[in-house]
Amino acid sequence: MIKAAIVGGTGYTGGELLRLAAGHPQLSIQAVTSRQAAGTAVAEWFPHLRGHCDLSFVETLPEDGRGMDVVFFATPHGTAMHQVPALLDAGVRVIDLSADFRLRDAEVFAQWYGQPHVAAEWLGEAVYGLPEVAGDALASARLVACPGCYPTAVQLALMPLAQAGHLVDAPIIADCKSGVSGAGRSAKIPLLLAEATENVKAYGVTGHRHNVEIEQEVSRHAGHAADITFTPHLMPMARGIHATVYASFEAPTGMLQALYEAHYAQAPFVDVLPAGSHPETRSVRGTNICRVAVHETRPGRVTVLSVIDNLVKGASGQAIQAMNLMFGLDESAGLALPAALP
Amino acid sequence: MIKAAIVGGTGYTGGELLRLAAGHPQLSIQAVTSRQAAGTAVAEWFPHLRGHCDLSFVETLPEDGRGMDVVFFATPHGTAMHQVPALLDAGVRVIDLSADFRLRDAEVFAQWYGQPHVAAEWLGEAVYGLPEVAGDALASARLVACPGCYPTAVQLALMPLAQAGHLVDAPIIADCKSGVSGAGRSAKIPLLLAEATENVKAYGVTGHRHNVEIEQEVSRHAGHAADITFTPHLMPMARGIHATVYASFEAPTGMLQALYEAHYAQAPFVDVLPAGSHPETRSVRGTNICRVAVHETRPGRVTVLSVIDNLVKGASGQAIQAMNLMFGLDESAGLALPAALP
Amino acid sequence: MIKAAIVGGTGYTGGELLRLAAGHPQLSIQAVTSRQAAGTAVAEWFPHLRGHCDLSFVETLPEDGRGMDVVFFATPHGTAMHQVPALLDAGVRVIDLSADFRLRDAEVFAQWYGQPHVAAEWLGEAVYGLPEVAGDALASARLVACPGCYPTAVQLALMPLAQAGHLVDAPIIADCKSGVSGAGRSAKIPLLLAEATENVKAYGVTGHRHNVEIEQEVSRHAGHAADITFTPHLMPMARGIHATVYASFEAPTGMLQALYEAHYAQAPFVDVLPAGSHPETRSVRGTNICRVAVHETRPGRVTVLSVIDNLVKGASGQAIQAMNLMFGLDESAGLALPAALP
Amino acid sequence: MIKAAIVGGTGYTGGELLRLAAGHPQLSIQAVTSRQAAGTAVAEWFPHLRGHCDLSFVETLPEDGRGMDVVFFATPHGTAMHQVPALLDAGVRVIDLSADFRLRDAEVFAQWYGQPHVAAEWLGEAVYGLPEVAGDALASARLVACPGCYPTAVQLALMPLAQAGHLVDAPIIADCKSGVSGAGRSAKIPLLLAEATENVKAYGVTGHRHNVEIEQEVSRHAGHAADITFTPHLMPMARGIHATVYASFEAPTGMLQALYEAHYAQAPFVDVLPAGSHPETRSVRGTNICRVAVHETRPGRVTVLSVIDNLVKGASGQAIQAMNLMFGLDESAGLALPAALP
Repeated sequence: MIKAAIVGGTGYTGGELLRLAAGHPQLSIQAVTSRQAAGTAVAEWFPHLRGHCDLSFVETLPEDGRGMDVVFFATPHGTAMHQVPALLDAGVRVIDLSADFRLRDAEVFAQWYGQPHVAAEWLGEAVYGLPEVAGDALASARLVACPGCYPTAVQLALMPLAQAGHLVDAPIIADCKSGVSGAGRSAKIPLLLAEATENVKAYGVTGHRHNVEIEQEVSRHAGHAADITFTPHLMPMARGIHATVYASFEAPTGMLQALYEAHYAQAPFVDVLPAGSHPETRSVRGTNICRVAVHETRPGRVTVLSVIDNLVKGASGQAIQAMNLMFGLDESAGLALPAALP
Repeated sequence: MIKAAIVGGTGYTGGELLRLAAGHPQLSIQAVTSRQAAGTAVAEWFPHLRGHCDLSFVETLPEDGRGMDVVFFATPHGTAMHQVPALLDAGVRVIDLSADFRLRDAEVFAQWYGQPHVAAEWLGEAVYGLPEVAGDALASARLVACPGCYPTAVQLALMPLAQAGHLVDAPIIADCKSGVSGAGRSAKIPLLLAEATENVKAYGVTGHRHNVEIEQEVSRHAGHAADITFTPHLMPMARGIHATVYASFEAPTGMLQALYEAHYAQAPFVDVLPAGSHPETRSVRGTNICRVAVHETRPGRVTVLSVIDNLVKGASGQAIQAMNLMFGLDESAGLALPAALP
Repeated sequence: MIKAAIVGGTGYTGGELLRLAAGHPQLSIQAVTSRQAAGTAVAEWFPHLRGHCDLSFVETLPEDGRGMDVVFFATPHGTAMHQVPALLDAGVRVIDLSADFRLRDAEVFAQWYGQPHVAAEWLGEAVYGLPEVAGDALASARLVACPGCYPTAVQLALMPLAQAGHLVDAPIIADCKSGVSGAGRSAKIPLLLAEATENVKAYGVTGHRHNVEIEQEVSRHAGHAADITFTPHLMPMARGIHATVYASFEAPTGMLQALYEAHYAQAPFVDVLPAGSHPETRSVRGTNICRVAVHETRPGRVTVLSVIDNLVKGASGQAIQAMNLMFGLDESAGLALPAALP
Repeated sequence: MIKAAIVGGTGYTGGELLRLAAGHPQLSIQAVTSRQAAGTAVAEWFPHLRGHCDLSFVETLPEDGRGMDVVFFATPHGTAMHQVPALLDAGVRVIDLSADFRLRDAEVFAQWYGQPHVAAEWLGEAVYGLPEVAGDALASARLVACPGCYPTAVQLALMPLAQAGHLVDAPIIADCKSGVSGAGRSAKIPLLLAEATENVKAYGVTGHRHNVEIEQEVSRHAGHAADITFTPHLMPMARGIHATVYASFEAPTGMLQALYEAHYAQAPFVDVLPAGSHPETRSVRGTNICRVAVHETRPGRVTVLSVIDNLVKGASGQAIQAMNLMFGLDESAGLALPAALP
């Protein structure tokens, strides 16, 4: 049994870690922190966890987390980097769901997140935790930086092309649609049902933090600086991301379907749909699955459709998938069940 | 042209007053106040009003509202009662969309709204502004207390029985369903789309401020103390109220349909549906119409279905309907257009 | 491993049986029939089951179902009664999710379902499969009639009162709100998103098949003919039922909370909330749990709030719960995981 | 008063024509046809039109439409082309909301719509009815082909660039998101609320009829063959289109905002938002307005955001706007009111 704790458990990713832990045979959450909710039962914040989680939120981890096998950070950016070094020094492994260790370059972090990085010495050690790419590096990782939700959907759409060297150095468009839970469980007027229902809007069109993260990772695998225009949109729904990725490729016509199928043949959580398909976000709701469809629309041009649940494969599920690999468990442990439809 | 001002214009009822005014041939909104938004253009708060309203919010009304024909209060309860007396003394008529002047008894107000009433001397003068009941009293009213949204739907369902003396002195159930805009444009977690979508829940089951308002008014017209159990429920939608009202009546079987049709024959905004109908909230969305259906379910028992748009007939539309009658205009002025469906 | 088959697998309850079976350690679905979809892979009808169910629909069960331990009927009413007797005669146990064996009286069935009952001789043998009431009778049952979705929510709200003899012989109101999946996966205009979103409406106000089912069962346990006015409403959401039940009781004031807690202390799927609570349908979405809250609103009068997922506790989950009890398994097998929120 | 008739009035665009006509001071709908609903009151099909439209559907137009000033076709494609020539010959003007007269080339029509064009001789005469482009040509038009909903949103986003000669001959991406009402009021399972809620999916990725229409029109104005990849997506909402258009331009950096503002300065229904804005579909719901925002994302590259109501500016409102211009009325007659929010 892996002994784990969660820092910052009142948000949606914290709640999903707790939900998924309830169905994981080898994961035991021992403590979960929250400043605002300290002393309150978890089930009061998350009515669906009544009967499934008996913990109450605590102010800080007992013994500062020493004695845990792993600590998950489900905090807003800017928190983990302050606490992670001490945990790592104490031999506790860390999985950070926030953005603190995703970018390789501390200055780029400072520029996009508006604060200096206080643990830059750990950026080199952090493993960027997209399991389909990181693979074996996770087994020995002490610090895992979980990818953002949009970057997960976009990278899984592009990696087969990038890693095979087929990605042409031409502008790429990543037009992404997300449910509102991606904005977190925060009391803001634009996220009210009365404001967000029956509505679609883009945001951050001229610059979003996830754009730099996507370009960093795709460039690393494509062998050239990827030029990606990323546009996020808010959808009138709670969960789900649909990435529509437009790219140019250099390869014989008609071979991409086979390329994608082969690329993900061993990946338990990436499902390449048959040619001509259109994946639906609901088909992965609540699950760790990414469904991908590849459409060669014109000679040398491809539209890749990629859907995930932003809170699972885009956050907490991916974190547990990484944990499974870090501790030598079955990669799918606790993550095997299908979505409920409708 | 009626010169009007709005106190408290950043909420949904303020926005609806502005929207309806844009289509009203004889109403000119001269000023709209907001503490938090003073100095900001109305169209920044309400993107749909861009091009339809050139005002900016002001901190307080120019000349404290003197010179206006009428001032609308679209404030939370507890605000109007402080400002209304001075306006009335200055000869300005007032339409209060809040709860401050709805209850006849200052002590009952204090009990349910948690503060003493500071303008109790005006409670006797205030006209309870349900136009279908108040009728001619509105023509000379100086101060109109607009009914709550739930009370509007429930009273329109019960008044034909009550006023005809057919309402039996037995427990009445008013099971009501409302869209989330009824809770206002306030940044609260339970109102987030991610929390409120795909969800139904009751609230205030053992006591809600609208219960006492409903009982006060129905009792007044029924000739006995009405015993009404009112249960509000939150629906996963923005607008609309559906009241399902269960009552006992004393009258020959099968006569209620005709009774309701006759009762509302001259009411331009109450539409009694044919026997056997089930009204839909969407059919009145954005409009000032109440649709009612009467079902005699068992001998002496009736289920009345009543739908309104909580922000229009349940608030701002009703306020303008009252204004039309106060100023001798066509009762339907500015309120005549149908809903958009779907 | 229990060998099971499903008759009529393309609807929502069929899909939920398949989903839940994917997570059940002792249940193996061997075949699933559909006339319209015969020859098609299950995953084509249910995109969420891709990778979780390798079956294709078949026209009829192999060997007419002989050799199965149990056959589930997820068909519209009027189908099971034709096929069930032969299965029972062959020693195959049957769990019918349709209405065919819910009513005790064949004439009442004929009246409400518009066709004569062709297997009336089995009505006496059928166990009405509400496990919290049926209890041990399920262990030896050959034929189980799963309750309707509304009747499940309403009965779980009333049974503690009825069985304890506290239910007064006075009119009961069961005002119920359901997501649209309750109407099945059928291509009808009123169920379109464009028609059903942002809308609430009642239906069947003067008579619904579930009313007679509810009265039959509550009367049986209350010791007198229950007089229940049941009103179903359609909500703008996919899943979930909220029953708001108004009844009169004879018992000392303030004892109902303890009564309900004691009544369901051993029921793994009924969660009595703390006094003063308001259950939310989302908290049980995708699960077999019923959450109940009891409010004594006035002396001798109670409002009971009860929420379930109409497709799980109201249909397929309850069917599997019954199966677990029929075959001596853990009552919770395959049904233990929490809802996903948001 | 313009005497008009509608052919095919039971769909959403027919309903919107009737709704908008109810608020139009100079338009009188004299008859509306429907094969399936002949003899039924319009208000039975459209509950929101009760009290606003007293017509009943008829099988065919009285006198085959002779005597009308104008006939609207709100039929599926393939119907208007059979009936339009006789009307035109009789001197009746026609506004076709379907696709029959949008494409210039009868063979292209046959290829994309799967049937030969039977009135190809009228294709040259038809005016493509995007009023912001067609302008004066509408005044004398006898036959107007209303643009598709997606093509309207995309063209309004691109025309200022195209007509000014700034559009570079490079691939353009038009990633579009639409509410489900775009698919019509047809009883299909994928359009059910239970299927379409909480879901996003693309469709027609490798070819959609609107792609050819968009390319035809943009090419005509750009002066070169536009290469546009159009991807439609289905959103979990009833109304609204959001087009996100990615293009390359040749012009000094920073001048596009002014270009767009100048281009649409006289267009009453195109609202160019301030620099840095993100338009919301809800802000135009139920209205004829298109809101546009221009973002220069990288040197020489632009992302244009464009929102419309697919049933109004994308169909029936645009048809009435065209009619206003055909008959010399105020372009905004009957189309002036703002959206209702929330």
